[in-house]
Parts: sequence; structure tokens; C-alpha cells
Amino acid sequence: MKIDGKSYRTIWPGADGASAVIIDQTRLPHRLETVTLRTVEDAAHAILSMQVRGAPLIGAAAAYGLAIAIQRDASDRGIDEATAFLAKQRPTAVNLRWALDEVRGAVMPLPTEERAGAAFAKAQAIAEDDVETCRSIGVHGLGLIRSIAAAKADGAPVNILTHCNAGWLACVDWGTATSPIYHAHDAGIPVHVWVGETRPRNQGAALTAFELNGHGVPHTLIADNAGGHLMQRGQVDLCIVGADRVAANGDVANKIGTYLKALAAHDTGVPFYVALPYSTIDWQLASGGDIPIEERNADEVLLMQGQLDDGAIARVALTAPGTPAANPAFDVTPARLVTGLITERGIAPANRNGLLSLYPERLEAAS
Amino acid sequence: MKIDGKSYRTIWPGADGASAVIIDQTRLPHRLETVTLRTVEDAAHAILSMQVRGAPLIGAAAAYGLAIAIQRDASDRGIDEATAFLAKQRPTAVNLRWALDEVRGAVMPLPTEERAGAAFAKAQAIAEDDVETCRSIGVHGLGLIRSIAAAKADGAPVNILTHCNAGWLACVDWGTATSPIYHAHDAGIPVHVWVGETRPRNQGAALTAFELNGHGVPHTLIADNAGGHLMQRGQVDLCIVGADRVAANGDVANKIGTYLKALAAHDTGVPFYVALPYSTIDWQLASGGDIPIEERNADEVLLMQGQLDDGAIARVALTAPGTPAANPAFDVTPARLVTGLITERGIAPANRNGLLSLYPERLEAAS
Repeated sequence: MKIDGKSYRTIWPGADGASAVIIDQTRLPHRLETVTLRTVEDAAHAILSMQVRGAPLIGAAAAYGLAIAIQRDASDRGIDEATAFLAKQRPTAVNLRWALDEVRGAVMPLPTEERAGAAFAKAQAIAEDDVETCRSIGVHGLGLIRSIAAAKADGAPVNILTHCNAGWLACVDWGTATSPIYHAHDAGIPVHVWVGETRPRNQGAALTAFELNGHGVPHTLIADNAGGHLMQRGQVDLCIVGADRVAANGDVANKIGTYLKALAAHDTGVPFYVALPYSTIDWQLASGGDIPIEERNADEVLLMQGQLDDGAIARVALTAPGTPAANPAFDVTPARLVTGLITERGIAPANRNGLLSLYPERLEAAS
Repeated sequence: MKIDGKSYRTIWPGADGASAVIIDQTRLPHRLETVTLRTVEDAAHAILSMQVRGAPLIGAAAAYGLAIAIQRDASDRGIDEATAFLAKQRPTAVNLRWALDEVRGAVMPLPTEERAGAAFAKAQAIAEDDVETCRSIGVHGLGLIRSIAAAKADGAPVNILTHCNAGWLACVDWGTATSPIYHAHDAGIPVHVWVGETRPRNQGAALTAFELNGHGVPHTLIADNAGGHLMQRGQVDLCIVGADRVAANGDVANKIGTYLKALAAHDTGVPFYVALPYSTIDWQLASGGDIPIEERNADEVLLMQGQLDDGAIARVALTAPGTPAANPAFDVTPARLVTGLITERGIAPANRNGLLSLYPERLEAAS
């Protein structure tokens, strides 16, 4: 999508054919800086420190990271070690493991001298596949927005609430939750997005507001606490969020606080959709209760990064010294609170039959 | 309650008998500073800028503010003007209007030369009455905590989630939501408090964590987004929050985000109590849908105040310049989500009959 009129992706191959370049998302929204990943440690650091974040982008970055590692050591043992090292950086992100397995599947049958080239090609294919997947999610979700717009008075915008950043910055391009929004905006349908700031890491304030602004989509930032009130007052027509992992029964693990928004949507009759690519579905997981929830550093709650008046980036302490804090990064929204799942294949109810209707090959695989 | 072993209240009469002294809560948790209110403008500024906040404390500060005004101009017209000026500072806070009416009722029948003295006496009586009210709320709420503790394994703490600051810093002493907690802690019952940070003004992070720490009550700060997840995982035994206004049907207006926590408590079977003094009940208001919701400055969402490493207090911008933000300050929790109301008279269901069972004189007044 666009930033200041220029088209970007979040990750692309380096000109040397042996590296990858990313937008450093920890510097947004104050600085637009890129980082070149030249070693597997660079890639692991980018994933752990959230220079790249969002399930699909983590997958693409891990694929490039493994390709970079294979270039240095293409032995089976080297690949196993690099895989394990990359996989442990973000345990909740199923795409990370999935992308690593894709690259391994492409290179392991090959002689070692062919592995690096094949791994880079596979990483690039994963990135291109994600762009196409996100584009398709948007085409399907566009129909939902179009039908709400058709029922509105002329020119009244469709008000869409989202949480965290399931935008193009979380993917390679388009985004998941934002793809229907960008498609609607580009199609001339008036939309307005309520952006939850998404404490404690403020991905909504720092990233979603930034990317919507860059592409010219009207939006308003709110505290996470305000979402329910806006729904009570009829100011939200539709919620669309992303997902970090979806269980086979339709339960959704997503950024902490998603469950609260889903409860409010259910209580107020606002449709609540989850947009996701196929790689986010964990078919092995019977329900969301089994999803491990990452506990992140307490400093994310205690300190807040932002820009001082003089332009410097600084962290301020919100509490008195020594305040204890807990920081669970995700929660699980039960499928019963989800109106539907939007995937690259279409829209389906959030349950086993709904998922199987979109992915019938899974039914054959299971039988 | 105590800060560093020394007992404090949030407001007390100045030694000159013509002013009032407050803790400047906009400086907490980084600085413990007091401010002397010498003019009605000082009092209005303290209320508007939230140097004093919390329904009961706003009432006490308004009462002192009107007494200070009357000292300068005790005419009917002067009192009317000062009343109107103070009343408009925080339109959602019913205690503000109530306290002003109390002072007016005490002084209007008197000759002008007796009014200032009577007004100060009434302000002090309002403050003392609040201390006793909060103490009684704590005695009643203690029973809830004691019964949960009795059902637990030996020594396991009772986990209580609260939102915003309905602590002693919001009152004159004890607090409303925190009073049962302080009573339980002082009685040797192990308690642990989950403190929601309460964006956008961070009253949980800045005030509730500060006061619990000062009194030695174990606590853990969390992002507002985390409350539902903790309830899903069985880590919350009880929610207690305060209220800014309670309608006659038991609907509760409280800090933005309260509704979301109440939904999660209802969904997970966690008891959800609202602690409040009688002055918070708006008997004229049939339901919460009619409560006006204050829209505060967008900068509260866009900027965050905290302490830099060098000890200086600074504000950092969380977003790119020009990001639009909305900032509704309260939401309304429907009575159906409230397990019970804890008042100085006891505990009752959140409905008209429940309220009337505690305040039967209202039944007589209505008949």
C-alpha cells in the first residue's frame, strides 16, 4: 500500500540476492526506516523484537531468515538448528512454524549446493502468495462492507472498528482485517475506521493509524476501553480483526483485548468478523483453550515509547518504581462470539463445518 | 490511608480557616505535592484539570470551593454565580451538584455575615461524612471477600480486579471500590489486586497502583485489554469498581471500559460489584441511557505523560502528527451485568427494588 504516495511492501529481497530488507516497525510511526537482514540472528532479532510482527509477515520473515541461514550452512544439521532457533522466537505464531516447514519441504530433498537458491525462491514465493491471499480476503470482505453501505443513507460512511494491526504492515501487502477496508476505500465506498490503540504495545496507534493515514482512509484513534461504548451508541457498523491462530472449532487467538470487543459486539448486535489467511488455521487444535498464551515483558506495560516535543524518541515510566505488572499478549475469543471468518476462499461461520466448507480438502485429508 | 507510613487524606482545611489543601493528583505517582485552594477559580481548576478527581472527592472539593467563594461574596447572587461556575466543570459527576446543593441549603437561610463560617463547616462535614460512608462500604464489602477467602485453600489470596481509581485518592479516605480491599488486608485476609491501567488517563497505573503500594496491598498492573483473559483463565475471583453515577434502575456510569469488564465477568461467571456512596445515585434518572457522556480532549489519547530516566516529567506523542482521536470518558454498564451494589447501607441487587431496599425513605418520598 502507499506511504506518502509511494508504494511499499513490508519485506523484499535485498539487491545482493543474499539478504532481505524490512521496514523497522519498532520505529513507526515516528520514523520510516528499513533494516537489512543479513544473518539468521538478524532475522530472529527482527521477529523477537517485533521489527516485523503480524502472523503473515512473521512467516515471510522466518522464511527469508531460514534461507539466509541455509546460504551459510546448507547441511541438514545446520537447517535443523536454524529452524529450531527461528521457531522459538514467537511461540504463539503458527505461521512462523508453517513457513519454516514450507522452506524445509522445498530444500531438504535437494543436494546441499542447490538448497540456498531454492530457499530464497521459496521465501519469495511465500511472500507473493501472501500478497495474493490478502488481496483475496479483501475481495471477499468488500462484499460485507458494500452491503452495509447500500443500506445506509447516501454518503454516510460505514463505521468499522478494528483492534491491533492486522494491516498491510502485519503482512506483505494489503493486510488481513484492513484488506476489505482498502478495497472498499479504493472502490469509492465511504468508510471510517475506529482504531483501538491496542495497549500495551500500541500497534493500533502506532501502525494502523499510520497505514490508514498513508493510504488516505478516514479513521479515528480511540482508547481500547472506548470500543464497547461506541457499539452501545450505534457508532460501529462492523468489527473486523485479524487472528494469530484459529483453532479447528473457530476459536480465535488474537491480540489481548479482542475477546472484550467481541463480547461488546455480541451484546450490541454488531457483526464481528475475523479475517485470516489459511496458514493461520491450526487444524490440529481442537479448541482455543489449548492455545499457549505468550507472556511478554512487564516493561511493555510500565513504560511507554513516544516522541518528545523536540522530535527525540523516548520512553516514559507510567508508574512509581517497583510496580509489578503482568503482560499476556493474546486472548482467545470463543467461536460463539464470531459472526464469521473471512479467508482468501470466502466467508464462513466460525465453526468446524464452516472451515471445512472453505477447505474441503481438509475433510478428505481427515477421512 | 498511608503513604510511606504516614496517614493522609486527599483534602483538608487550610490552617488559615479560609482555604483547603489537596494532593495534586496530576503529579502522582511521580511526585507527592500539595496545592492550596484560595479562590473559587483554584477550586474550579482543580476539578477541571483533575488535580482532584473521583466522584466523592469532586464533591468535597466543590463544597470547599463554594465555601471559599462565599467568604469573598456571600450575596445570593454571588453564591448563585459561584455555584453555576463550579457545577459546569464536570457535567457527569452528580456528586458535584449534590455537594453544592448541600452547602447552599446550609447557608442560604442564614444572614450573609454567617454564611462563610457555615459553608466551611458544611464542607468539612461533607468530607467527614464521606470518610464514614467509605468506611461503611468497606465493612459491608469485607463480607464478600471473607466468604471467598473461606472457600479457598489455606493462604491463597483472593484475586480482585478493579478499574480506574475508586480508591481513597478518589474520596477523602478509604475509597469506595478499594475500601473492602483495605478492610480485608487490614483484617489479615490475603488479597491480590489486578489493577487495570485505565487508558487514556492511566488512573489505575498512576493512582490505584500507587495507593495500594503505599498501604502495602499486593497488586499487579495490567493493560485494560488483559482483564477478560484473566477472567477466562480463572485468575479473578471478584471484580469491584466504583461509579460516577448510578441510575434508579441500577445502570452504572463509570470510567470508560467498565462495560467491557462487566461483559467479561458476566461471560465467565465472575461476580461483578459496584461500590458507591448514596450521593452517586441519581434517583431522577430512570436508566443509564440518559446519562450524558463527557467527551474529553483528544490529547489524552494522543499523548502520554510519564517520567523520563532523568526524573523529568514529560509527555510523548504516541502517533504520527495529525492523527484524529475520540475520547469518551465514561460508559454505561447495564444493571443486568452487575451482581450487586455495595453502599454504606449494605449490599443489594442492581435494580430499583434493590436500591429501595437500602434506601426505603426514597419509597416514602416517591409515594
